[in-house]
Amino acid sequence: MPKEVDHRGRREAIARALWRVVEQRGVTQLTMRVVAREAGMSLGQLQHYFASRTAMLSFAMDFAAEQTSARVQQGLDELGDRPHPRDVLRLTLAEMLPLHADARATSRMSAAYVLEALHDEAVHERARRGLARGLALVEQVVRQAIADGHIDSGRDPATETHLLLALTGFAPLIELDVIGPRDALAAIDAHLDRLFRST
Amino acid sequence: MPKEVDHRGRREAIARALWRVVEQRGVTQLTMRVVAREAGMSLGQLQHYFASRTAMLSFAMDFAAEQTSARVQQGLDELGDRPHPRDVLRLTLAEMLPLHADARATSRMSAAYVLEALHDEAVHERARRGLARGLALVEQVVRQAIADGHIDSGRDPATETHLLLALTGFAPLIELDVIGPRDALAAIDAHLDRLFRST
Repeated sequence: MPKEVDHRGRREAIARALWRVVEQRGVTQLTMRVVAREAGMSLGQLQHYFASRTAMLSFAMDFAAEQTSARVQQGLDELGDRPHPRDVLRLTLAEMLPLHADARATSRMSAAYVLEALHDEAVHERARRGLARGLALVEQVVRQAIADGHIDSGRDPATETHLLLALTGFAPLIELDVIGPRDALAAIDAHLDRLFRST
Repeated sequence: MPKEVDHRGRREAIARALWRVVEQRGVTQLTMRVVAREAGMSLGQLQHYFASRTAMLSFAMDFAAEQTSARVQQGLDELGDRPHPRDVLRLTLAEMLPLHADARATSRMSAAYVLEALHDEAVHERARRGLARGLALVEQVVRQAIADGHIDSGRDPATETHLLLALTGFAPLIELDVIGPRDALAAIDAHLDRLFRST
């Protein structure tokens, strides 16, 4: 058991090293050799944990998604027992944007992963499934909010979910200093206000 | 003069070769050597046109932005003399999404460029300026639509512009088959309907 835990710990340390490479040097530098050096191990040691670049990248991406979920869950816990669906959606969206160091790392990781997915079927399928799961969770919140009368029943839950997810498009705009974090959050608030004011 | 035109033509051919590399093999393969091979020239010949990878990438990105603008302009011309601002915004947004081969190439190019910008100051500034210009154009349309009574004067033009630009977040969702092109356009239509129905 401790060995298993240690194995997991090493893989997470490698994933964090991979994020640092993406963050500091860019996805073009993302080779197993560079990640091994960043993680302070030999290429052979890295290959003991990940047989291929794709396997390493997939784990790093899954780990990033887990970290994002954990941050959202922690935020939800702080909202108390029965959080308002508007707060749930705002928190979820905000954690998907590069508004603080951890979220920035996972956001950049996601952007790199999408580009990888375009010419790697396995990565594409894994990324698709991860995002589809996220979409289903958001849609569940939207449907429940409609059922509970927080959102007008005339709103189409699928369309509203798609619009909410598309707002992750603020990520590159924030990264490039085209729209400031405060303005992005203000726009998200305006969108949510109208969604929830529609009753 | 013919020599100048030819020079421009060669640079555009290189930019298209670069797009093909991004499209087919991914940004990690984006070296001057690979692009030279794809363009059917030697590395030395490529270096005659672009002194550095960044210079090559910047030209390819500017060219992609020009191509997108040209497609939008062509669409606007087809809309007739005084197009409705809703149609202008829909056309602009649609051309920024990977809905057909040309738009897919420029959309992928943009995504690659954003990742490059994160660790290259010159690319960051160039990408920021390009996007800021796009934002200003959209905001101009929104402000005029408010002035002309097409959009309720209670709407904040900056916030509405930010929300419209954020909807380019559909691009990765379409690329990963999480949201279909038809659903993305339906969501954009729903958003525009509400923006223009607010009067």
